[in-house]
Parts: sequence; structure tokens; C-alpha cells
Amino acid sequence: MRVFAALADWGTTSFRLWLVDRGGAILGERRSGEGMTTAAGEPGGFAGVLERHLAALGAPADLPVVACGMVGARQGWAETPYVETPADTATLAAGAVAVPGIARRVFILPGVCQRQARFFDVMRGEETQILGLDTGRARALVCMPGTHSKWVVVADGQLTGFATFITGDLFAAIAGHTILKHSIAADQLDFDKDAFVSAVRAGFERPAEITNRLFAVRATGLLDPAAEPDPAATLSGLLIGLELAGVESRFGHLEGRAVGLVAAGKLAARYALAFRTLAIGAIEADGEAAVRRGLLAAASTILKRP
Amino acid sequence: MRVFAALADWGTTSFRLWLVDRGGAILGERRSGEGMTTAAGEPGGFAGVLERHLAALGAPADLPVVACGMVGARQGWAETPYVETPADTATLAAGAVAVPGIARRVFILPGVCQRQARFFDVMRGEETQILGLDTGRARALVCMPGTHSKWVVVADGQLTGFATFITGDLFAAIAGHTILKHSIAADQLDFDKDAFVSAVRAGFERPAEITNRLFAVRATGLLDPAAEPDPAATLSGLLIGLELAGVESRFGHLEGRAVGLVAAGKLAARYALAFRTLAIGAIEADGEAAVRRGLLAAASTILKRP
Repeated sequence: MRVFAALADWGTTSFRLWLVDRGGAILGERRSGEGMTTAAGEPGGFAGVLERHLAALGAPADLPVVACGMVGARQGWAETPYVETPADTATLAAGAVAVPGIARRVFILPGVCQRQARFFDVMRGEETQILGLDTGRARALVCMPGTHSKWVVVADGQLTGFATFITGDLFAAIAGHTILKHSIAADQLDFDKDAFVSAVRAGFERPAEITNRLFAVRATGLLDPAAEPDPAATLSGLLIGLELAGVESRFGHLEGRAVGLVAAGKLAARYALAFRTLAIGAIEADGEAAVRRGLLAAASTILKRP
Repeated sequence: MRVFAALADWGTTSFRLWLVDRGGAILGERRSGEGMTTAAGEPGGFAGVLERHLAALGAPADLPVVACGMVGARQGWAETPYVETPADTATLAAGAVAVPGIARRVFILPGVCQRQARFFDVMRGEETQILGLDTGRARALVCMPGTHSKWVVVADGQLTGFATFITGDLFAAIAGHTILKHSIAADQLDFDKDAFVSAVRAGFERPAEITNRLFAVRATGLLDPAAEPDPAATLSGLLIGLELAGVESRFGHLEGRAVGLVAAGKLAARYALAFRTLAIGAIEADGEAAVRRGLLAAASTILKRP
């Protein structure tokens, strides 16, 4: 099998690299924590990080690289302006920026921005993953939970709209920097499913009461600690329930609907449990395979250029 | 006029002391930043702080002191267990704790807790202020905005229920410790009223979308900075609007209702503007006079004891 390109998913805190053939078969793979935040400070900067990993895989000197993610942000390697919704992999390929001033051909895919819906929104990296999912021709709703959860509408290979919810970011800020820091132990080992499920319901059913309900976590801990056995699970459930209420407000009724869920590990388990709690169907998808497919589709278009 | 007692409003970060006669006329007054957080570390601890201020006013050695606020918390001077709702000034007087091991008679009034309503809740200090308001016999709703905004129902001198919203706490955590920290300038001088008013409406009308709307503050700043002229005002408006949506969910329809507003300075102006935006009537009250009246009422009961 002949190596066709290197594909990189280069986010804020992580770096993943694959050598692939024209059909997408993996010929080599590297992963590290050298995300946008640290790569700029490494020897040789972004180029140094990339070349070291390519050398480790024995990649040819003229192998082109196609990357997506925060590496294309203003604070990244080479700013790649957002393209607008609706977008497909051809749009991403057309908006790719070739990194200037280096010998190797490195293309960074653009993020996607939205100016037409109720709220302005942006993403960088998730668009490539979403467009690598096989969601078919019908309108699909996909959830990518995280620090900034993305909910994306995709239909027939077109990303048509999305909304970002800062659920994970808010969890960390509340757990670490509000009155709730006195309630949430950093070393909580067990995860109380009942507390989480009940909080998901509360956050979903009464979103308006969230800032009152947050104080109740603290007050219950003072008055009747047994009634609040796992404040971290409660906080997580409340914020995920709130997110789901927001998604319903933005994208319509969720109960009984089948929603794509692109996540791994603890986060995947937590969202799957939240979905079950609210009778939302989950179609779990492999995010890594998806981003590779999205990168490959864009690479095939870009590298066909004369 | 003969001095009857010293009254102290002793919170987390502030200390206020008044010498009063039996009718509540002020014979001397002191204020400082020696709240619960710092008083414990001062020479002589809480007693040292109190005696220095009493000495500065020439208070007699046998003058009794009645205090309220966080000084009665577990981390305070002498823990004073919460009394339960419903509570009036007689309940506060009955629950007062005499500080042990000192020559002077110092009584700390209890906070109030709530176990009967939808959420457990607690307050320390606000109960004394609320019960010092002249709200008449009818059921009144009173707003005390702040780090932890208290909304209190009082009827005929009885505090019957309340709810805490961590609005100010959340503002600081979001502005300082989430993606929004890149949008919010610490030295913003002008306050954009239009941005605030529009955000109050958005937070109130679509509370479920709050975590999405928060990301939009950042995304709008990236895509069209002119459309988000004052991110701090927007964040403040969103969270106050969200609080008001929660209050409506807990205590019923707000439009056209007259609500007591106990606040000062910038916070009072901001809540008054939010009230006007949503056609809520504001009856502004003097919080300092109220806490003195509440303390005096409790002191009159306590000091009548044989």
C-alpha cells in the first residue's frame, strides 16, 4: 500500500497523526499532548513537532499533510479563516490554507462559523469530524460533548447548523470557583448514578431554576449531607440536563429521537445515561474514525489540484 | 438618650456596629472590613475586633451586644444553629447563642434554613434585615441581590420562604474562569445599557439556552465585535434575566408585581433596570436601616429576659 498523505487532528491540547493510503487504510499513527497550547513553545514550534512525528513514522520528505483543529486558530500555526454554514468537505477543502514558509506542503482546514441562526457560533475541528460521519441523507442531529459541547445538524453531507454549550467549561468554573467548591471533593471516587439521573431531570425540566438549584447543592450539604451524596454528580447532571433543555429549545423535541453521540470514555457513558434518562436514542459513533474520514475526504480534493 | 445595646451586622467581609438607645436612635457608629474572613486572624480574634470598636465609641464595659450574619457560621466566632422557616424576630431571639468564655454579654442571632420547599436553602444575616423591613401584613416578595441573591417571601412579620440564586458568584466564575475570560475586559469603564437590557430579556425568555448564549458572547466577539459591544454587561444581563426566570418559576408571575429591592449602588441600579425591562415594580428599601431595626427587635426580646 502506498502512502498518500498524513492527516492530523491538532486540537488545543492534543495532537494525532496518521499516515494513510488513498483508501484511508492506516499505515502509521502517532499521538501526543503537543496541542496548540504547548506546540508553539516546543523546539521548532508547530513545524518542529510535526516533523519529529513524521520522521518517527519514516514519512517521505514530500508527503503532504492535511490538518484540522485549533492549529488553524489565530493563536495557532497559520490562521485559517472560518467558512460559513452550510459547509461540506469540498467547502473545507476550498477554504484550506497552505502553511507558508516551510518546505513541506501542509494544509490546514478551516473551522466553520454560523451567522444565520439565532446565535453566532464557531467550531474548529468538529466540522471535519462531523462531515466524516456516515449520517446518510436525512437530517441528523449529532452531539459532541466536552468542554464546549457541540450540537450539529447535518443532512446529506452538509453541515447546516450548530450550537455550542459551554457545559464542561462551566462545570470546572462552578466546581472550582464558586461556593460549590466547598461541597465538591476533588477525589470523589464513586459516581452516584441516582444523584446524576435525578439532577439531569431537574436541569432539563426546570432550566430557569438552575442558579437556585446550584445553591441547593451547598445548602443540602449543610443541612442534610445524606440527601446530597455526590455533589459532583449532581452538578454534572444539572448542567447536562440544562444543555439538553437548551438543545430542545434550539433544535426541537428530543424525546424518542435518535441522536448521534460522538464521545469516548467517561463522557460517553455520562451522556448515554442522560439520553436514556430522557428517552433520547443514542447512536454512538467512533470520533477518531470520523475525523480521519473527514480529513481524507478533504485531502482527496485538495491533493487533486494541479 | 441612654445607650441600650450595641448592634452588629457582621458578615463575611464587612463589620458594622451601632450603639443605639431603646428606640433605635443611633448614638455611635463604626464600620470596617473586618468581616468573618479576616476577623479570626486579627489580634484577639473576633473579641479583639469587637472590643476595639466598642472602646472607640466609649461603650460601657457591661453594654450587651447583639450581632447577626456569618459571625454565627461554623467558621465564625460561635456557631449559632439555623432556625427553620417560618421565622420572625422572636424566633431569632429565641435561637440566639451567647458567646461563651468572654466577660461581655454578646448574643449572635441564628440564620434561617428551609427544609419544606422544593429546595433546601439557608441564609445568615439577610433574615434579620428582611424582618426589619416594614412590609406590612400582606405577602411581600423581597429581592436582595448579590453574590448569592436572596428572594424572600414575608407576610405579617413572618419570613415564610426563600430561594438563593448564585448570580454574582456565577458571574465572577464565568468572567474569570471560562472561555469568556478572553472576551471580558477587566477595565471596562462604560456600561452598555442596551446590551444589558437585551441580555436581561434573552436570559429571562429563554433560560434553557443560557449555556449556548454564553458561548455566543465569545463567538460574536470573534465574528462581529461591534455586535457585542460590552460582553460584561451582556453576561450580567443574561444571569440577572436567568435569575428572574427562576424567581418566576419558584414564586409566580412577576410582570406588574411590586417587589421589594434591598440593594445599594451599582447593583441596585442594575436590578432596578432589569425590573423596568420586565415591567416588574421595584419598592427600593434602605438595607442598613432594615438590619438595625431587625437587630433592635431581637435585642429588645433577648435583653428583656431575666
